[in-house]
Amino acid sequence: MLINGVQTDQLSALDRGIQYGDGLFETIAVIDGQPCLWGRHIRRLQAGCKRLGITAPESAELLAEAKAVIKDHQRGVLKIIVTRGSGGRGYRAPEDTRPSRIIYCTPWPDYPDDYWEKGILIRVCSTCLGVNPTLAQLKHLNRLEQVLARSEWSDAAVFEGLMLDSDGRVIEGTMSNLFLIKKGALITPDLSRCGVAGIMRELIVELAGRLNIPVSVKDVSLDDLKGAEAMFISNSLIGILPVRALSGQTFSLDPIPSVLLQAVNEYMNGCH
Amino acid sequence: MLINGVQTDQLSALDRGIQYGDGLFETIAVIDGQPCLWGRHIRRLQAGCKRLGITAPESAELLAEAKAVIKDHQRGVLKIIVTRGSGGRGYRAPEDTRPSRIIYCTPWPDYPDDYWEKGILIRVCSTCLGVNPTLAQLKHLNRLEQVLARSEWSDAAVFEGLMLDSDGRVIEGTMSNLFLIKKGALITPDLSRCGVAGIMRELIVELAGRLNIPVSVKDVSLDDLKGAEAMFISNSLIGILPVRALSGQTFSLDPIPSVLLQAVNEYMNGCH
Repeated sequence: MLINGVQTDQLSALDRGIQYGDGLFETIAVIDGQPCLWGRHIRRLQAGCKRLGITAPESAELLAEAKAVIKDHQRGVLKIIVTRGSGGRGYRAPEDTRPSRIIYCTPWPDYPDDYWEKGILIRVCSTCLGVNPTLAQLKHLNRLEQVLARSEWSDAAVFEGLMLDSDGRVIEGTMSNLFLIKKGALITPDLSRCGVAGIMRELIVELAGRLNIPVSVKDVSLDDLKGAEAMFISNSLIGILPVRALSGQTFSLDPIPSVLLQAVNEYMNGCH
Repeated sequence: MLINGVQTDQLSALDRGIQYGDGLFETIAVIDGQPCLWGRHIRRLQAGCKRLGITAPESAELLAEAKAVIKDHQRGVLKIIVTRGSGGRGYRAPEDTRPSRIIYCTPWPDYPDDYWEKGILIRVCSTCLGVNPTLAQLKHLNRLEQVLARSEWSDAAVFEGLMLDSDGRVIEGTMSNLFLIKKGALITPDLSRCGVAGIMRELIVELAGRLNIPVSVKDVSLDDLKGAEAMFISNSLIGILPVRALSGQTFSLDPIPSVLLQAVNEYMNGCH
């Protein structure tokens, strides 16, 4: 692990990352020794820093440090955390922040192949997402909602839990975004009120556009899920993972456009 | 600073406190070398741990460590952070958590005496509080909303900013709870959807009850603020601090019952 370029896993407990969750993170697939979709992840990180008023680390510096921590991993998960750093009196941040960057790589999670072949089981969580447009879309460090939602089940057969916002709209999974398929078109929940704007979600929306697959980003209700022909979740590690069943409702994998699956796989393996 | 009983300010960056804000904190006034309202703070911390499924540290251990860090401070601010500790795969917490405890003392903030004599200026923030009953009332480590709300103003003359929830209800200040006075009765916002259930707020409600001052805990709108005769904020450090003006509306300090101010001061100075 590198913290501010130094090989250590120790951080000051006065860092605003721990004091307030005052920071952001990225989770990046390492494939064939390369950080996958690097440019997109760094752009999101920089945009997030701008929204939070954190001075973004230089991308060249991040890349050099990322390469250093992944050099012995052909495949792995690269995590980058950027916090506002230490200091300030209470919630008020100091004027001249010196952000902290924490960069490390963990082993690739070995999901069974049949997750992709047969689809996964998912559930609906009772822990909700608070509506806050100021924080919406950001991959920030305030993740207690996800921690509590993930603690709702221990059945290893259930891969993911969907979270609704406090007004009952379906938003996303605890660690993934959600897509429905209805009449051949993709639908993914609007994230203007809460949720994380996933890099893989963004890529899927773009690729679908190029492949002339209609996509709409809009509010999704639990009833909309019942009317879906198919469903998949996405994140930077799993790419696209089809849903086989949700709370007793089963889905076929057939409606998921194979050209889209293929395009996402090529993109991930190409590691642009 | 003591981290898990060891004199250090360094914490593993894998701690779930920094990874997810997966923990709680207490901010405690140290007066005459004693942690003020200790029993109430520890009960809140333990209740919060229970709600988050974190094994609460022993109160005797916390007290011994608190005494060690405050031993050179007659007056100061004691901060206790408890996180779920390190480990777990993603958001899912490990079954057998070993919580981390971070305990340290900082200098007392020297607020001018005339804050109490003349009252303070406050504003209304545009950053809102997300509604989430699962997290409501907890003094947890997910505090980006407060950080962003506090970043909205830099005018040193403005002491505090009020935050509304995403449905427009008035909830609290960035670092304090709010009380209105209307027809001699106290009103403080209901915190069942969001907000921090402050120790001083709890004490004020109790003392008011004993003093036969009517108190109601209910939803408060911006219009309710306009109809208030007086207003004050509270937290464990300031006790009760009267509001002189909010967005152009001015208040008299007279309607605040002097018996209540006196009772709170006695309680704080008595350091029960």
